[in-house]
Order: sequence, then structure tokens, then C-alpha cells
Amino acid sequence: MGSNGQEHANGFHDGFHASGTAGKVITCKAAVVWGPEEPFVMEEVQVEPPQKMEVRLKILFTSICHTDLSAWKGLNEMQRVYPRILGHEAAGVVESVGEGVEDLKEGDHVVPIFNGECGECPHCRSHMTNLCARFRVDPFKSVMAGDGQPRFSVLDPATGKRRPVYHFLNTSTFAEFTVLDSACVVKINPAAPLQKMCLFSCGISTGVGAAWNCANVKEGSTVAIFGLGAVGLAVAEGARLRGASQIIGVDINSEKFGKGREMGITKFINPNDCDKPAHEVIREMTKGGADYSFECAGNLDVFREAFMSTHDGWGLTVILGIHPTPRLLPLHPMELFDGRRIVASVFGDFKGKSQLSDFVDKYMNGETKINLDGFITHEMPFTEINQAFQLLSEGKSLRCLLHL
Amino acid sequence: MGSNGQEHANGFHDGFHASGTAGKVITCKAAVVWGPEEPFVMEEVQVEPPQKMEVRLKILFTSICHTDLSAWKGLNEMQRVYPRILGHEAAGVVESVGEGVEDLKEGDHVVPIFNGECGECPHCRSHMTNLCARFRVDPFKSVMAGDGQPRFSVLDPATGKRRPVYHFLNTSTFAEFTVLDSACVVKINPAAPLQKMCLFSCGISTGVGAAWNCANVKEGSTVAIFGLGAVGLAVAEGARLRGASQIIGVDINSEKFGKGREMGITKFINPNDCDKPAHEVIREMTKGGADYSFECAGNLDVFREAFMSTHDGWGLTVILGIHPTPRLLPLHPMELFDGRRIVASVFGDFKGKSQLSDFVDKYMNGETKINLDGFITHEMPFTEINQAFQLLSEGKSLRCLLHL
Ligand SMILES: NC(=O)c1ccc[n+]([C@@H]2O[C@H](COP(=O)([O-])OP(=O)(O)OC[C@H]3O[C@@H](n4cnc5c(N)ncnc54)[C@H](O)[C@@H]3O)[C@@H](O)[C@H]2O)c1
Ligand SMILES: NC(=O)c1ccc[n+]([C@@H]2O[C@H](COP(=O)([O-])OP(=O)(O)OC[C@H]3O[C@@H](n4cnc5c(N)ncnc54)[C@H](O)[C@@H]3O)[C@@H](O)[C@H]2O)c1
Ligand SMILES: [Zn+2]
Ligand SMILES: [Zn+2]
Ligand SMILES: [Zn+2]
Ligand SMILES: [Zn+2]
Repeated sequence: MGSNGQEHANGFHDGFHASGTAGKVITCKAAVVWGPEEPFVMEEVQVEPPQKMEVRLKILFTSICHTDLSAWKGLNEMQRVYPRILGHEAAGVVESVGEGVEDLKEGDHVVPIFNGECGECPHCRSHMTNLCARFRVDPFKSVMAGDGQPRFSVLDPATGKRRPVYHFLNTSTFAEFTVLDSACVVKINPAAPLQKMCLFSCGISTGVGAAWNCANVKEGSTVAIFGLGAVGLAVAEGARLRGASQIIGVDINSEKFGKGREMGITKFINPNDCDKPAHEVIREMTKGGADYSFECAGNLDVFREAFMSTHDGWGLTVILGIHPTPRLLPLHPMELFDGRRIVASVFGDFKGKSQLSDFVDKYMNGETKINLDGFITHEMPFTEINQAFQLLSEGKSLRCLLHL
Repeated sequence: MGSNGQEHANGFHDGFHASGTAGKVITCKAAVVWGPEEPFVMEEVQVEPPQKMEVRLKILFTSICHTDLSAWKGLNEMQRVYPRILGHEAAGVVESVGEGVEDLKEGDHVVPIFNGECGECPHCRSHMTNLCARFRVDPFKSVMAGDGQPRFSVLDPATGKRRPVYHFLNTSTFAEFTVLDSACVVKINPAAPLQKMCLFSCGISTGVGAAWNCANVKEGSTVAIFGLGAVGLAVAEGARLRGASQIIGVDINSEKFGKGREMGITKFINPNDCDKPAHEVIREMTKGGADYSFECAGNLDVFREAFMSTHDGWGLTVILGIHPTPRLLPLHPMELFDGRRIVASVFGDFKGKSQLSDFVDKYMNGETKINLDGFITHEMPFTEINQAFQLLSEGKSLRCLLHL
């Protein structure tokens, strides 16, 4: 396989470039999780070549989203499959492509997307959804769609035999090399700094897209955001860029408020410091309720507060948080008759393959002024992944960028 | 008070016309309910004159909606207030108006609306909602907004004293005369036949409006309707007029299917005759799910079937049924991540005062071809109201028109 002759921007020199790994098994490092909440182990894994319509990526940067944290904790028992390689927020370059892949080639700068887009199914052809029939986000999926097999394996010291290592969220980016369906890989502007592009892979796109594509936040409107992690703060960025007149941030961790202020949040509520529920405070602040609220904490009691905090008649609550418990929506059907609406959004309603590179370009040419740097609160080598998880778990980081 | 000189169309001669009842208490017949499921008693009630911004109507026709049936059964304990005059689907003429009422006058042909429109509150000024801050539907309200008092009273034979009789749903149309806030009275084309206009007062507007204003049913789309009473069949009319390609009707009472066919329903499902859930049958019929589903039965298990019967990615379920039990929505938050949406609609999202008379005009000039006659399955004198309730309760009528 020849080089594509493309100069890599931002100083990255790809080690595999002339090494001719295409078509061969690659042995590399990956952070493997062997059981719920068990520390990641840096294993030597074998990564098979990409099959038909698949792509093998060299991951250069990966960060940690709360969805990885929930999966690591094994909160949803039905999703417990081990050993597994987690991770879905990343950026890298194409190492090689499988048969039939025409839109990507070796050396392309890419971000993986956990919510793929085949471009051909009825869903992809509809402008009403970003949920591809075949490659949409699926927390239960742990193998490749093509042949139902994983592409990773590891030597089991107990038996001396290789055993499969499972995939996660279409991506598995906690590995130096990973295999994805080409529907889950987006080629981006090669001039874009890959370490920041990582954030477009999930958090930023989810939050900004939720404000833009899903809620369609209007100029002058009021917004309440529950949970000021990267996703919630990205909603704030999206709402600010749309000209929201009031952006209220709610978090039980007041340490998030400093960052929140940078991102354009105008008022803060720590429910633990209030003598009444957050929704009442918000209804007072907004004279009746926020036009939009966003649930970015993954907690159903928070969802209820978010729902109640919107204006009756037209308020919209966007659910972004992942709710792993079997608990049902705490909502009476008649409450919907007050005209409050609820919707959930995956990946900010962006169609990854067809819209993400454009979103990146607008960031690059300055049209969309997102404060990406503000989201990267920590950086460390990939091998420190356990510490990075600790930081997110303790609410100390927004995104910790791991360098591979 | 002088006559307004207006000729009444369609042969109606109003008995009060020159009788000078304005400003005086009127004694008339009303069907009073004294306790949950207790037969209506035709009582002589006194009806006070309309106060500031109120209107007294002479009701000429009233029909029975399932919401009256639920209230009569006292299904929601918190709504039990007796003695009470139920009824909200009606048509009549203005007998007199209170101070400050300028848009209505004696003799106007009107329909009452249970979901009022003051025209001045932020909600009324917003195009996003039909829920007036002051006069929206409120099943707990039993007195006039102005002074917190009822306008009806009846002689209590036990004490020999007059006792108050309570209002229902802003309207209380099971009475020869009733007092409403002017925000709850819509003047309509005097050429329109009042006996049919009754249906615009709730059922027809709710169903057609749900399809038009709330769901905005698109040409060529697929629609599933759960519960083929007047509301469900009016949804069918609305969907048919919008050019839906497939309208599927679901009811446990197969006797509704004949009428359904007249209203444009193309396929029928009786869940009791199926060996799999209705939503699976619908997903097969529609190759993936209906674009829209409507819950018109007032049952949460039916709601769940309606929700599951829509297409993932974009399906919209409109809740129209009233759910009187304390049971919460049987829905997991993650189910919303499949892109199915839910919304509830009051009065088909019509703004009664500003949009209903236009809707009536379009019916009158033939622009909107609704099969109103098909909805009136029975007619009888007002005094037969108990029998009329029986018919609806047994699923034998769509609308039984009571002549006062
Ligand atoms: N829908 C999607 O496509 C999508 C994409 C990415 C992440 N997510 C989900 O979004 C959520 C947020 O992700 P993140 O990476 O920003 O997480 P994070 O851990 O960085 O942030 C979560 C924030 O919620 C706050 N919080 C926790 N409990 C709270 C409470 N009771 N009240 C108020 N605030 C509370 C925390 O203090 C923290 O600041 C997670 O559930 C994640 O799984 C969804
Ligand atoms: N949202 C609003 O503004 C509004 C306005 C009017 C009526 N409503 C409500 O709409 C609902 C329908 O009113 P209606 O007057 O047409 O009632 P209706 O009694 O005429 O019709 C209800 C229909 O539902 C069917 N049904 C009952 N259980 C069912 C089940 N398990 N599966 C399928 N079908 C079932 C019945 O057989 C009947 O045909 C009621 O709950 C009523 O209170 C709401
Ligand atoms: Zn994520
Ligand atoms: Zn697709
Ligand atoms: Zn009704
Ligand atoms: Zn109003």
C-alpha cells in the first residue's frame, strides 16, 4: 500500500507510515478492562486487519467521556462483556482500509463516531434522524457488524491461548490501533489540530448539536443546563453562540462554576445550597421557566427537575444523560398536557459522516467560535488512564486528553 | 336589553329573545350530578347573571365526551366536587354579557371552549401554545375565575336552603343556561347549523387539530390511531384530509370499525384478536412503524403500544386521552434515545378564540370536508341524559346529541 503523499499538519509524524502494516495483524498496546470497576490493564493486544467496509485507525489522542465511566463501572449489567476495550472520544489517522472503503484512505485524519452513518439505509436517507439503522450507537454491541467477531485478541496467561477482546460503542479508542466500520469514521480537515479534534468525537458535538440541531435554541431565549461536565458546558457554548439571553447552570459540584462562567453561563445553582428545588429557582429567574432545559447528568431526579424548570406551554427538555438504571421516567402523562416537551438526543442530532467535517471546518475558519481549549483540563500519557478515570469520576476534570 | 336585530339562521327561534332576562337570575333545568356515578338529576337551578367579562349562554345542543364520562365516574378523586354540572361539548346563543365583554353580544351563535383564550397573557401572545395562563383547561377548577364563586345554585330539600352547584371545565353545558368567562366562548358563523357545531366544541377540533396543528401530519405518511371514539375518528378525518397514505385504527371494540372505514381508516386491528402486540402488527404493516400515533383511549398500556408502534428515529406519539390514575408513564428514558417522541395535545392545539371560527368557516364553505354527520350517532332530548351516558359508556355511541 503506497503513501497518499499527504503532508501531515501540526507536526504529527506517523510511525506506521512506511512500515507496511496494511493487511497484517498489528500488535500494540491497549487499555483492557477485565471486570466492572477493575483498573485498566495495559495489555499487548493483536488487532486484525480491517475487513470489508472496515477501517483500521491509529489512535493518537483519546479522552474520557462519562459514558466510558458508566461502562467501566458496569452500571448496566446487561452491558457487562469482558475483556473489553472502552473509549469513544478520540482522533487519529487511517492506518489501512478494508475492501470496498472508498471515502477513506491511509493517512487521512479522522475522528471516530460512536453513532455511525451508513448513508444508505432509510434512516440515513431521512433528514429527520441521525440514527443509522445499522451503525447507530448501541451499548450492547461488542463485535463487528460484518461477521459478528471482535478484531482484538489478547494472550490469556492462565491458558496460554489467545482470547477475544470485545469492542465498545462502535469505536474502542483506548488502544493504539482499533478497527471500526467505515460508517463510524469521519475524515476531517488535515489542518485541524488532532488533539483538540478529539472533542468533536463526542462531548462537544453532542452538547453543541443538542442546542443547535435538537433544541434549535433561539436568540434571546432562556436555557437551563443540569450537569456541567463537558457535555453540559458544550450545550452552554452552543446556546451562547445562538444568542441565548440567559444560560443557567446547575451542578452539585460548585467547582464547575468557574469553567461555566468562561463558557457563557450567566447564573449558577447548586441544589445543595438552596432551600427550594432548582426548578423553582429557575422559574423565578426566568419569570415562568426556561425555554429549554438540558439533562446532562444521567440522573432521573435531575431529569425531573430539568423537566419542571421549563416554561409551561412550550418548554423543551433535551435528555442527553445516559440512564443506566431500570428506573422509569418519573412523569405522569397528564404533566405533558401542560405543554412541556421531552426529547432525547444522541450525538447532538449530528449526522456524523455528512455533517461533522463541516462543523470542524467552521471551527477552523473561525465561523464557530468554540472555546475548545477550555474543555481540556488535563493531559497525560495514555498509560496513566486509570488516573484519568479517577479525575473524571471525582468531578475534577472536564476532559483529560490521553496521548498515545 | 334590546335585540341585536340579527336573523337566526337554520330555523332556531330563541325563546328568551324579548324576555328581558339580562341582569336577572334565570331559573332553568340542569342535569346535576350529586356523586360519583350517581344518575344525573334534572334539577331546577338558578343561574346568576354574568359578572365582569363573563357571558351567559342559552345552550341549545350538548353532546357527551369521554372526559365528561370520566368526571362523572369520579375517576380522579381530587376532582370530586358535588353537586356539579358537567358537560363541555355544546352550542348555543348568547343570552347576555357581563361588564366589559365587547366581542360578544346577545344572540350571537357560539360554541363554548373548555380551553379558553384570554388573548392577553404571555401564553396567548405566544404562537407556541394554546394554553392560556388564566383560562386553560383545568379539571380542578369548579368556580368562576373572577370571584371564586359558582353561578349556579339549587334548593337543598334537606335544609330548605339554596346551595351552590359547581362548574366543570370552564363550561358546564348540561344546563339550559350557563355562565362562562368570555375567554371560553367563541362566536361562530350564524349560518352554521348549531346542532353540528356542538362537535367543534371539543371532539372534532381536538382530533382534527391534533393531526393538523400538533402532529402536522404530512402527505403520504402513515398514522396509527388507538381508540376509535369521536376523538380518534376525528384524528382519522384530519389525517385523511392531509393525505396520509395509511391510517390504521386500533380498538378493542370491533363495532367501531364500520364508522372508521367511513372516516378513511384503511386498516383495523383489534388487539384482542391478535396473537402479538398491536405495535408489532403496525410495524409490519408500515414497514418499520407509523410516522405518527395517537393515543385516544385514555389508557397507559394503550399509550405504550402507541409509542412502540411509531417508527424509530422520527415517530411522534400524540397523547390525547385523559389519564386519571396516578400511574406514571410506562417508559424508560433510554427508550427516547431511539428517536421516538411524545407530546400531549389539549384541544388539538387550536387557539379557540382566534382560530375556531375560521375552522368553522372552512367547514361551511366546503374547503374542509369533514364528515360531521358521521359523528352524531344518536340524538335525544336533554332529559334522556342518563341514557346518553350509558350509550357512550358501553361504546355504542360516538356522539349522542342532546336537544335542550
Ligand atoms: N446523548 C449522547 O449522545 C451523549 C454523549 C456523551 C455523553 N452523554 C452522557 O451525558 C452525561 C454527561 O457526560 P459528561 O461527560 O459531561 O459527564 P461529566 O461526568 O463530565 O459531567 C456530569 C456532571 O453532572 C454533575 N452532576 C452529577 N449529579 C448531579 C446532580 N444530582 N445534580 C446536578 N448535577 C449533577 C456532575 O457534578 C458533573 O459536573 C453522561 O450521562 C454521559 O453518559 C451522552
Ligand atoms: N386532549 C384533549 O383535549 C381531549 C379532548 C377530548 C377528549 N379527550 C380524551 O380523549 C379520549 C377519547 O375521548 P372520546 O370521547 O373519543 O372517547 P370514546 O369513549 O368515544 O372512545 C374511546 C375509544 O377507546 C376505545 N378503547 C378503550 N380501551 C381501549 C384499549 N385498551 N385499546 C384500544 N382501544 C380502546 C374504546 O373502545 C372507544 O372506542 C378520552 O380519554 C377523553 O377524555 C381529550
Ligand atoms: Zn461520549
Ligand atoms: Zn444508515
Ligand atoms: Zn371533550
Ligand atoms: Zn391567555
